Amino acid sequence: MIRVGIVGATGYSGVELIRLLAGHPHVKVANLYSSTSEGEALASVFPHVQALELPVLAKIDAGQMGADNDVIFLATPAGVSAELSPELVKNGAKVIDLSGDFRLKDGAAYTQWYKRQPAADEWLQKAVYGLSEWKKEEIAGAELIANPGCYPTAALLGMIPLAKSGWVNPKSWIIDAKSGVSGAGRGVSLGVHYSEINESIHAYKVSSHQHTPEIEQELTGQAELEQLIQFTPHLVPMTRGILVTAYGQLEKAAALSELQELYQSSYAGKPFVRLRQPGSHPRTKEVYGSNYCDIALHVDDRTGRVIVLSVIDNVVKGAAGQAVQNMNIMLGLPETAGLPLVPLFP
Amino acid sequence: MIRVGIVGATGYSGVELIRLLAGHPHVKVANLYSSTSEGEALASVFPHVQALELPVLAKIDAGQMGADNDVIFLATPAGVSAELSPELVKNGAKVIDLSGDFRLKDGAAYTQWYKRQPAADEWLQKAVYGLSEWKKEEIAGAELIANPGCYPTAALLGMIPLAKSGWVNPKSWIIDAKSGVSGAGRGVSLGVHYSEINESIHAYKVSSHQHTPEIEQELTGQAELEQLIQFTPHLVPMTRGILVTAYGQLEKAAALSELQELYQSSYAGKPFVRLRQPGSHPRTKEVYGSNYCDIALHVDDRTGRVIVLSVIDNVVKGAAGQAVQNMNIMLGLPETAGLPLVPLFP
Amino acid sequence: MIRVGIVGATGYSGVELIRLLAGHPHVKVANLYSSTSEGEALASVFPHVQALELPVLAKIDAGQMGADNDVIFLATPAGVSAELSPELVKNGAKVIDLSGDFRLKDGAAYTQWYKRQPAADEWLQKAVYGLSEWKKEEIAGAELIANPGCYPTAALLGMIPLAKSGWVNPKSWIIDAKSGVSGAGRGVSLGVHYSEINESIHAYKVSSHQHTPEIEQELTGQAELEQLIQFTPHLVPMTRGILVTAYGQLEKAAALSELQELYQSSYAGKPFVRLRQPGSHPRTKEVYGSNYCDIALHVDDRTGRVIVLSVIDNVVKGAAGQAVQNMNIMLGLPETAGLPLVPLFP
Amino acid sequence: MIRVGIVGATGYSGVELIRLLAGHPHVKVANLYSSTSEGEALASVFPHVQALELPVLAKIDAGQMGADNDVIFLATPAGVSAELSPELVKNGAKVIDLSGDFRLKDGAAYTQWYKRQPAADEWLQKAVYGLSEWKKEEIAGAELIANPGCYPTAALLGMIPLAKSGWVNPKSWIIDAKSGVSGAGRGVSLGVHYSEINESIHAYKVSSHQHTPEIEQELTGQAELEQLIQFTPHLVPMTRGILVTAYGQLEKAAALSELQELYQSSYAGKPFVRLRQPGSHPRTKEVYGSNYCDIALHVDDRTGRVIVLSVIDNVVKGAAGQAVQNMNIMLGLPETAGLPLVPLFP
Repeated sequence: MIRVGIVGATGYSGVELIRLLAGHPHVKVANLYSSTSEGEALASVFPHVQALELPVLAKIDAGQMGADNDVIFLATPAGVSAELSPELVKNGAKVIDLSGDFRLKDGAAYTQWYKRQPAADEWLQKAVYGLSEWKKEEIAGAELIANPGCYPTAALLGMIPLAKSGWVNPKSWIIDAKSGVSGAGRGVSLGVHYSEINESIHAYKVSSHQHTPEIEQELTGQAELEQLIQFTPHLVPMTRGILVTAYGQLEKAAALSELQELYQSSYAGKPFVRLRQPGSHPRTKEVYGSNYCDIALHVDDRTGRVIVLSVIDNVVKGAAGQAVQNMNIMLGLPETAGLPLVPLFP
Repeated sequence: MIRVGIVGATGYSGVELIRLLAGHPHVKVANLYSSTSEGEALASVFPHVQALELPVLAKIDAGQMGADNDVIFLATPAGVSAELSPELVKNGAKVIDLSGDFRLKDGAAYTQWYKRQPAADEWLQKAVYGLSEWKKEEIAGAELIANPGCYPTAALLGMIPLAKSGWVNPKSWIIDAKSGVSGAGRGVSLGVHYSEINESIHAYKVSSHQHTPEIEQELTGQAELEQLIQFTPHLVPMTRGILVTAYGQLEKAAALSELQELYQSSYAGKPFVRLRQPGSHPRTKEVYGSNYCDIALHVDDRTGRVIVLSVIDNVVKGAAGQAVQNMNIMLGLPETAGLPLVPLFP
Repeated sequence: MIRVGIVGATGYSGVELIRLLAGHPHVKVANLYSSTSEGEALASVFPHVQALELPVLAKIDAGQMGADNDVIFLATPAGVSAELSPELVKNGAKVIDLSGDFRLKDGAAYTQWYKRQPAADEWLQKAVYGLSEWKKEEIAGAELIANPGCYPTAALLGMIPLAKSGWVNPKSWIIDAKSGVSGAGRGVSLGVHYSEINESIHAYKVSSHQHTPEIEQELTGQAELEQLIQFTPHLVPMTRGILVTAYGQLEKAAALSELQELYQSSYAGKPFVRLRQPGSHPRTKEVYGSNYCDIALHVDDRTGRVIVLSVIDNVVKGAAGQAVQNMNIMLGLPETAGLPLVPLFP
Repeated sequence: MIRVGIVGATGYSGVELIRLLAGHPHVKVANLYSSTSEGEALASVFPHVQALELPVLAKIDAGQMGADNDVIFLATPAGVSAELSPELVKNGAKVIDLSGDFRLKDGAAYTQWYKRQPAADEWLQKAVYGLSEWKKEEIAGAELIANPGCYPTAALLGMIPLAKSGWVNPKSWIIDAKSGVSGAGRGVSLGVHYSEINESIHAYKVSSHQHTPEIEQELTGQAELEQLIQFTPHLVPMTRGILVTAYGQLEKAAALSELQELYQSSYAGKPFVRLRQPGSHPRTKEVYGSNYCDIALHVDDRTGRVIVLSVIDNVVKGAAGQAVQNMNIMLGLPETAGLPLVPLFP
């Protein structure tokens, strides 16, 4: 069995990794690490895992960790991985980092959007952006994966085929995104207080969210043409799910059927992207608990725009699930191993 | 006391009219009408009004209704008001129609978007579009008010000052709107089933929602320049509230402070529009149960766009509340009479 | 106008007092006090009140406060009022305390259930328990009101007529109560984190909640016979509302119609208790935002039990609304002044 | 592979069976049946299963069905199974009926509580009540399983050890139960309308719910002493989950540790019942999407009562999951096969 370690198991992404890996046929959760709860059982934090056999939370020690694990997942706050991941790789482990520390190739952009020091440039360049469906070859050979952000995953999977096609004005993109509250993590604040969130919706970080440059970088890279995006996240009164509504100005008159074919061929053989009927309206509930990204296409002849709807479960495809998918690719395992193929409905 | 009649009291807009009018100092709910529950007490449908003294549900009879009421509100399904409202006006009542039957001046557009026959053209032209803040004079002299739709109210109040300013490219508007479920009314369907809506979000009627031409008509009218909008509604797992996120391409470099001043002067002396701090993020909860529309402005220098956030309670400012506001204007009463000035929070 | 002061305006009960008092015809919110936000405007904490004219948050100073206000509401954490309220009364103000500091007549019980020192016994005895419907005379003459807890309000209004009747075994009471999250206040903790509360229900403080002795004290006092209750609170994924399901063993075979009559006569002329049809199932939504307590009665002939269902809005009748009702009684104003008489639905 | 058929695949229990069986290592979903959607693909009803290879919905024909399946699950409305199940068994299939048609041994009780004709008495007696943890031997040899109701599952697992112990007064049981909305099924009605359910809680069918005799029958059977229960269900604004709060009067002074031991030994080796720490408060979220029943015990020395808290996911352990567990037992497969062992959190 492949030995897996998880840093940050007491957060939502960490415990979701445990859910997925507990059912994975080829790996064993060998080690859990925590900077705050060393020596405790995870079930003391999360009673819902009390029936699992899990190691106690161990102390973070890069040398030992590299030796004790084949693969290490980091589900840690910004800044932790920048320091820790290079050490883990040097000590022999493959690393999948769920934080934003290695996603931006440009350290200056990291500083601008994250308001903190970037990781060493050598490692920024070495890290592979782990958008499974579009980077499979690089992922297969990588030692360090920058696992994509939740919003970028939904946005990029929905937009890349169009951006590559050149049919959309690359400065016209508007991404209006809606997320459940779990994306904010388990830390407490007025911003996640039930009474403040329930029966309400609001936008946040308009024009300043740190996922903006991540989306632009990857969309530009795939299209080989600079893309400029407007990105607006919103907080929705639900726990899980992201819906991206993306708007692009068509530069040629494209029939909906043409776009549908473009996406069909783009995602043929990719098990976790489901192209929905043209003109349909996917619901986040229809991917709940699963690693799917469901995409639907619309063309508005009045305005000359394409509208892409893209839904994921932010905790799965937007975090832990895509991380497991990347591990599978890195290790040459079947891409779907350990990943549930039927969403929880209702 | 002014005698008020309500047609469609067994729906959500109808019963919200009752909530508001019960506290109105100058009117009396004299008559309730229903096509389905004639002879019943409203409390048999809505136990929450059992302590109010209300007339029993009476039968619809245009002649008698005109004689028995000074003002009649219609909260009825599409098509009812097209026939009934002209009769009521002819019989002496002022009419405020909460349905879409008289909102579009162009009968052909009505047919195209509503898929049914329009009202008589004479009456389409006679009806005044009741966007209280921008049509006050016409409303004051009107006999028939087409009360605005919920989405158009939030969108138009957020966009009109900019559209009038000429600073935004009139073909660039994108309105990404999010609504609570009460907007769908009280009728039963899988589309409002709790288990299907909860913990989920989805777009619907992309590029085909009937509020699209309504927004274009009024925005164009106010700007005196044709405006083309992209409108996408979404259903959010909450009961009340609409958030509009509107995007426009600036045709001149405008500072946020300049826009803020534009809105301040546009809404000076208008008690139900609250301009929020520049760069803030209003929540639908902050107008819950009230007749306010809260607006916040953002400018993104990277993309050259203005982003307007606008929130209302769809049942109040988006329906019954604005209807009462219009009644107040029609009757020369204080504009705020009967309208709660403090939202319910949390 | 009567001058009112509010201590703790930055919490949920405080801001709900402002909502209610803003519409009150006979009082003016003259002063707001805060120990943490001195000198700030309340709208910087709660943007939803930005349109109201309110005094800035002032510093707590018992002498000045007594002189500047006719009535002072305390919506403060446990322990604050025990010290402050007697000083305010001595300085000439009438005080309505929304905390638990003066509810228990027995200081030792306070220590046992609240785990802190009680207020001075002289003042515990002087304070009047402000259950408006059952203590009207004492309230009218009081200087210091201990405003009832949210759970006790729903429970006592539902149970007192039966307890007084002697028809129920006084040791048999079981109160299974369900509350929305706003009852926990605005403080942040994992216990009110949206992602932990949504899509979930749980019991808490089984057999150890501090409202237990409060209910027993008042039920015993009204019945003039010692009553023993089992009280279990639950947290429900909603913001507002309490439902009490109370079970009592009947000591005589009572017909439902008999009980219905008992309650009808008990609550005749009391505007905020609405007895519902026998055998009905009131919903918390049916009292939302209002000061009502709706009660329905059931008898189970198989088991010989009476089941009482009682619903309130915990922020209104369970806190700020009953406080205003008590103020009205103390000042000889109409009991319903300033209190909305139509719930918000849906 | 074992061939499985599902009748009623277009409902929530049906589609949950598909989720579970899609991951089951020993069975294949060979046939889906529907009385209303014959010839359609299930994905036309539920887009979330579009990636699964599933048979089209076939017509109900007892003879053919018996030949084509080894096991048939019925997730059908009351009354259907009473007729169909005996035919299926006669034609060679093992049947697991998720409806209430074979749960009550006493046909007269069925008529009284369900208001319809019971199944043939011969088959009522032949059917085995499928409470997996307490009927394992009978289930192993059964041809027809009456899969328990959702409320009875949570209640019985929580109460049986105590009822068998004889420590609780058998006439004193009160079961106050709280359920998510999915328990009401996928049919549309005002009772499951989002706007009516959200932000609200209510009791329903007080003293008249059809699960009452089911709980009494099985509790009495296990205890070998007649038990009388008071059962009150409530509808909670959430999709999945049941919490049972059960109260029993102790007839001897029992320490909490004693009860804890009783339950530990009762559920030793039973993988789907997790006894939680004494005095803890399990949340329905902690079993979400899983087949677990989590139980916690409390003793109140003041009142002499035991309070049992028991949580399940109503769609899994309360329906489809327990049905799969029963199938595993019937077929001699590992009891946990196909059943997820880690709840979805958050």
